[in-house]
Amino acid sequence: MTDRKEFRDLADPEDARQAIASLDLTPDPEQVPLAEARGRVLAERIDAALDVPGFDRASMDGYAVRARDTFGADESDPASLELAGAVHAGEEPDVAVEEGHAVEISTGAVMPEGADAVVMVERTEESDDGETVLVRTAVAPGDHVMLAGADVAAGERALGPGTRLTAREIGLLSALGVESVPVGGKPTVGIVSTGDELVRPGEEVDSAAGQIYDVNSYTVATAVEEAGGEPKLYPHAGDDYDEMEAILREAADECDLVLSSGSTSASAVDVIYRVIEERGELLLHGVAVKPGKPMLIGRVGESAYVGLPGYPVSALTIFRTFVAPAVREAAGVPEPATATVEARMAAEERYGEGRMRMMPVGLVEDAGSDGPGDLLAYTTDKGSGATTSLVEADGVVEVPADTAYVAEGESVEVQLFSPEVRPPTALGVGEDDPALARLLDALERPRYLSVGSREGLRRLRDGVPDFAVTSGGSADDRGVEATELAAYDREWGLVVPAGNPEEVAGLVDLVDRDLRFVNRGSDSGLRTSLGNAVADLADDRGVSRHDLVESIDGFGLAAKAHESPARKVAGEQADAGLGLRATAEKLGLGFVPVGSETVRVLANPDRTEKSGVRELRRALDEELDAVLSELPGFGR
Amino acid sequence: MTDRKEFRDLADPEDARQAIASLDLTPDPEQVPLAEARGRVLAERIDAALDVPGFDRASMDGYAVRARDTFGADESDPASLELAGAVHAGEEPDVAVEEGHAVEISTGAVMPEGADAVVMVERTEESDDGETVLVRTAVAPGDHVMLAGADVAAGERALGPGTRLTAREIGLLSALGVESVPVGGKPTVGIVSTGDELVRPGEEVDSAAGQIYDVNSYTVATAVEEAGGEPKLYPHAGDDYDEMEAILREAADECDLVLSSGSTSASAVDVIYRVIEERGELLLHGVAVKPGKPMLIGRVGESAYVGLPGYPVSALTIFRTFVAPAVREAAGVPEPATATVEARMAAEERYGEGRMRMMPVGLVEDAGSDGPGDLLAYTTDKGSGATTSLVEADGVVEVPADTAYVAEGESVEVQLFSPEVRPPTALGVGEDDPALARLLDALERPRYLSVGSREGLRRLRDGVPDFAVTSGGSADDRGVEATELAAYDREWGLVVPAGNPEEVAGLVDLVDRDLRFVNRGSDSGLRTSLGNAVADLADDRGVSRHDLVESIDGFGLAAKAHESPARKVAGEQADAGLGLRATAEKLGLGFVPVGSETVRVLANPDRTEKSGVRELRRALDEELDAVLSELPGFGR
Repeated sequence: MTDRKEFRDLADPEDARQAIASLDLTPDPEQVPLAEARGRVLAERIDAALDVPGFDRASMDGYAVRARDTFGADESDPASLELAGAVHAGEEPDVAVEEGHAVEISTGAVMPEGADAVVMVERTEESDDGETVLVRTAVAPGDHVMLAGADVAAGERALGPGTRLTAREIGLLSALGVESVPVGGKPTVGIVSTGDELVRPGEEVDSAAGQIYDVNSYTVATAVEEAGGEPKLYPHAGDDYDEMEAILREAADECDLVLSSGSTSASAVDVIYRVIEERGELLLHGVAVKPGKPMLIGRVGESAYVGLPGYPVSALTIFRTFVAPAVREAAGVPEPATATVEARMAAEERYGEGRMRMMPVGLVEDAGSDGPGDLLAYTTDKGSGATTSLVEADGVVEVPADTAYVAEGESVEVQLFSPEVRPPTALGVGEDDPALARLLDALERPRYLSVGSREGLRRLRDGVPDFAVTSGGSADDRGVEATELAAYDREWGLVVPAGNPEEVAGLVDLVDRDLRFVNRGSDSGLRTSLGNAVADLADDRGVSRHDLVESIDGFGLAAKAHESPARKVAGEQADAGLGLRATAEKLGLGFVPVGSETVRVLANPDRTEKSGVRELRRALDEELDAVLSELPGFGR
Repeated sequence: MTDRKEFRDLADPEDARQAIASLDLTPDPEQVPLAEARGRVLAERIDAALDVPGFDRASMDGYAVRARDTFGADESDPASLELAGAVHAGEEPDVAVEEGHAVEISTGAVMPEGADAVVMVERTEESDDGETVLVRTAVAPGDHVMLAGADVAAGERALGPGTRLTAREIGLLSALGVESVPVGGKPTVGIVSTGDELVRPGEEVDSAAGQIYDVNSYTVATAVEEAGGEPKLYPHAGDDYDEMEAILREAADECDLVLSSGSTSASAVDVIYRVIEERGELLLHGVAVKPGKPMLIGRVGESAYVGLPGYPVSALTIFRTFVAPAVREAAGVPEPATATVEARMAAEERYGEGRMRMMPVGLVEDAGSDGPGDLLAYTTDKGSGATTSLVEADGVVEVPADTAYVAEGESVEVQLFSPEVRPPTALGVGEDDPALARLLDALERPRYLSVGSREGLRRLRDGVPDFAVTSGGSADDRGVEATELAAYDREWGLVVPAGNPEEVAGLVDLVDRDLRFVNRGSDSGLRTSLGNAVADLADDRGVSRHDLVESIDGFGLAAKAHESPARKVAGEQADAGLGLRATAEKLGLGFVPVGSETVRVLANPDRTEKSGVRELRRALDEELDAVLSELPGFGR
């Protein structure tokens, strides 16, 4: 057990890829109705079983004639033919065309016996009594007639095996009257999640008991669908050996591939390991890749098995780069060209370890006034395991084990998490602010990272984001070059329980009384404003700022987002929290105003003409006032 | 009525686009379960309703401690803490950590009260009696603990409206416990097909009554799905006014958009026109675009209506270029970048008319030994209305009305028929041959156009295809430079009814007796071989070839594909047909051998190193013998 956990002999990532490729996931072909065949892949060649059209068919409205009867006819000397009847589309002709005769015919109708050409109606004139028709042009045999089989002839190769069925192929199959088609089956991929603490979305989560929602099951299931597979979720196995073994065996029986994602408990890994050893074959355990080291590759019964890492970004990364190619291969669905993009590194990265790295990156377009620019890739998740980094990263860059350094500006290939992923139209960073959050709704595909004002300014200075949002200070103070797009004010203070039962009057109460306070992080502009207010109070009292801060219970307790302190108050875990009037009113809490601070939206000066930034500017110009008017304590 | 049919005032294509854009197709948002939300587009912003994690969570296996108790501890001087219990993931802690105490904790478990840090198990040692644990490192408050809300804080903006849901977004929504999400509805697109002659695939078609399979309904339905819409097929309306009016009104009630495709009968157009005038609004009728001139744009009741042309390629072209953008817009699904490619014209094209042209083109990669090359676009369908041209074209080039000439080599933008369309790996042209048709099954994504040996050679000389297949003559004869990849022989002759009831012995019987014969087209190599045999016979008899040919009933009757003459014999429409021994045996017919001809597979000399051509060469080397051995009369 210890040996396994330490992975003394890590396999080469290439060997892991080959091990997965060696697991044959290909399901049996199946027959699907034509109406459901879109995107599927033909399992066999389809030859035409019939002629299209199945009869000699008029391709114009006009008159079916014997071409010979029209020879020499022209405008000045029309041929006069006896009108013998009519044939319409979808009718069996009840008349034949004899010498000197013509039959009225509509486009698509069966050519009557004896006729070998059609004269367009525009070149004819029917007599008033409908007995004769004057033909003002000569036609050759075959004119305006599509012979039976001229479109598709019976016996012709129509579509080859491996053909992906799009609209046009469905069209050809329709013409052949095909009701259903043999297509490659979709590989069924069972997803087994382990861990007593996991709860499916939609069910109630009991936080006190340490329950959390299961992220990997739906994430991986979606990625399986994107790769052309059919995901099948199995009930949570918990950590009980017998239950887990039963679920694994059931999944192996029913699926072409079984995936589990890293359980937090060593015992779960142990169960999987034992089931594979008893009922299958272990091909690999432990791969020299980060993340993904504990990857387990093998077979359980007839099914393939791959164990994915536990962190969501890691699970998706390993699925995308190691497992999805095998699923696509089995499904016969090639990876779209859009699944990979070229980008330049926004900053250098150094690697200490001798393991291949799957580096999650976000993308931003470095576009200026002269049109579209390069894509920049910046690293995101540093292995925190956070689910937010799922949507903060666009894809992953594979860094070989022998690469210790990737330079700023170096070109890298980014494997997008999904082929549909597209880089954000505008990348913003900085203060967490409710007015801005609403304004972003007006943009097409923005990304905003709430890293706080200070960190936001630092990143803007490094040139990666398109814009930064700050509060509680000014950009000039830090020497960051930026173009101010807008500025507005927000009222901040202490959020207290509804009705303010403790009768908190201001900062002084935090210092002088025994109140539990919750603060924001030191990168937050709101925190800066609080710090300034505390410093002013210290000056007034003639004490040091440090002493004042020490006497506030919870001053060091930094909550992540702008609503978090207020929510701690709402949850009765605190008596007061740093926050905005808007938040207090939204959550139905009390509010003790302390001050007002200015929020600034600052554009990267090199990107002011980028379309996403222009869109932001338009939204600020046209919609900011409406947004501010809806938020108590906001204005300008 | 006459006015309408002649479209005296054709609208500008741009006006048609705007008219379609003005028809609002956007359906109401709907709520879908998370598991079915892939690819959908969020209708509203989603803010986090809860903290993730919902509790302070251990992020390592180890011991929960008060950090202060570990201060100063290191390898040589460990801190000894009393072991007070254990907490596992998914459990509510039943113990608190008091000063000098530690609690065993597993990754993901709730931090017990009193503890503020976790020491990794690797840096500890438990006593044998399980009473104490030695901690060999100092930890700071917060070490290996993820605070409640540190991943996602309640109230944070999680995803904005308009976000396309891929695996990563589904992951974040899972973490938030979201069971279902509000997404933009898929526009419902009703497809009404008119025409008494149309039969749905899967049903029996009565060719004698002029019935044909309905191609456009499924083709357009598939294209609607590709554009993010929900297609709904209505029963065939026939040409009856009341029936058709009822179906149109039903479709308009149930759908956001109703499409019909050009009926072959003028009366159907008339009915649609009248229903629109009575129950809706006509925006446009007749557009200066080819194909697509009779396009009809309007409203029926609450629904939008667009009438598409009748030919399949035309219907798909007009849908793709005029209607799909509006469907995508309503569905919130942008067109993938892969839907359009750049190409160079393979040959010049001239345009006489002053109408915008939607020119269907096929694509071939002009790749040599030096890697991938440009894409060449060659024109395909010339308005024949054939369904085969559906799969022979990859997309369409928009040629403005004022463009009279597109030069060879000129760069054009090709709008692919579907984003999944990819150019063939190898493009072949020439003789229709069953051995080759089987061999193509071994290639990844070939395209083969059975244009006959003569036309195949002509195209090879012009440099467009990758390879040509000829029979009945030699490439050298026509001065075409080519690299021969393989050659094999096939036995040809006269296909006659089973048992040869007429006791046909050879060509002489065609000449001397009153037999109905069916020939192949003059581009076919088989026809060349027949011609040579007829010439030899004429020489023997000392008569002119012309006289001999004149005495063969049906010598001029050219059937499209290599099996077609044999099938005419099988259908008792002929006594003898030009064909192969292999075809006769396949169809259970009799065969009178006349000769053997050589089939040559000739590569474009500039493309011999193109990967598709190398794949063809490999297939010829490795699989041709097996294919030939299965076909009677084939060999080398």
